[in-house]
Amino acid sequence: MIFLDLVRRRQSVRQYLSRPVERDKVERCLEAARLAPSASNAQPWRFVVADDPALVRGLGRAGYNRFTREVPAFAAVIREPGKAVSRLGGWLAGRDYRLIDLGIAAEHFCLQAAEEGLGTCLLGLFNQRRVKKLLGVPPGRRVQILIALGYPADSQIREKRRKDLDRMRSYNRYGG
Amino acid sequence: MIFLDLVRRRQSVRQYLSRPVERDKVERCLEAARLAPSASNAQPWRFVVADDPALVRGLGRAGYNRFTREVPAFAAVIREPGKAVSRLGGWLAGRDYRLIDLGIAAEHFCLQAAEEGLGTCLLGLFNQRRVKKLLGVPPGRRVQILIALGYPADSQIREKRRKDLDRMRSYNRYGG
Repeated sequence: MIFLDLVRRRQSVRQYLSRPVERDKVERCLEAARLAPSASNAQPWRFVVADDPALVRGLGRAGYNRFTREVPAFAAVIREPGKAVSRLGGWLAGRDYRLIDLGIAAEHFCLQAAEEGLGTCLLGLFNQRRVKKLLGVPPGRRVQILIALGYPADSQIREKRRKDLDRMRSYNRYGG
Repeated sequence: MIFLDLVRRRQSVRQYLSRPVERDKVERCLEAARLAPSASNAQPWRFVVADDPALVRGLGRAGYNRFTREVPAFAAVIREPGKAVSRLGGWLAGRDYRLIDLGIAAEHFCLQAAEEGLGTCLLGLFNQRRVKKLLGVPPGRRVQILIALGYPADSQIREKRRKDLDRMRSYNRYGG
């Protein structure tokens, strides 16, 4: 039951120590993200890790939550063009399936971070234009997720508030 | 480095033994999915696990890949309405951010399956109408992902083909 323990340990952290994050730990988080699966193995992502203090301050101010101003590092998950073949299915369905791939890769990053004793928080809403400018992201790309990253100020694991299993799964028939 | 080992072990499996999948293992996969993070903790998902042989055969024929006809079980990941507040951000951005949440929950399921010695394969394209009908999914919901599930016919771990780390990450500036 090792993975379930890690899942329970991963939690959204909104208060961090000012202690910097070692790059060897960040590299293992990136390696976990690199190995993530994606539709047609398109890997439609790039990660930009910000650990320069001035840059991190700028990114923190581009967030819509006050806590992002006190985060020691960020990882920006950028949506890349990917492969035409895997974009086609999404286009046909009127949806961008790359979001599924990016979510998976970002979560691999966060789970490895939890294993390293680091805290994370996935952010989906922020000032897109400002973040792109700060990181030098070219047109046609989108910063889809910002991951706040650092040592948690409080290492206590909170109980997760989730729907009961009976309200989220059934066998052989919806809702059954 | 336990999580990275699990990440290396999770791979897309397209050939399965006919051996049935024990429900206690499936329940732990569902528990891992249940505990996944989501925007505003909306948990916009439901899982329907199909292990009834006749139903599984029907679902297999709704896939666009031949291998799905020989899969012993499926888990359908269904997109639920979720919370209005978390749909709003996505609507403003012209995107359905629930896809990120569903990708993460589905991957939690697959990683726990790997821990249980089970193989999985994430499927994004299949006959939506047929799958919804077979599972009794009400209107307004969408089967976003089908997860093929079973004991792998071949337990060998393949080398993953992925972009080099240098081509997917940089520090403090895009593409560095």
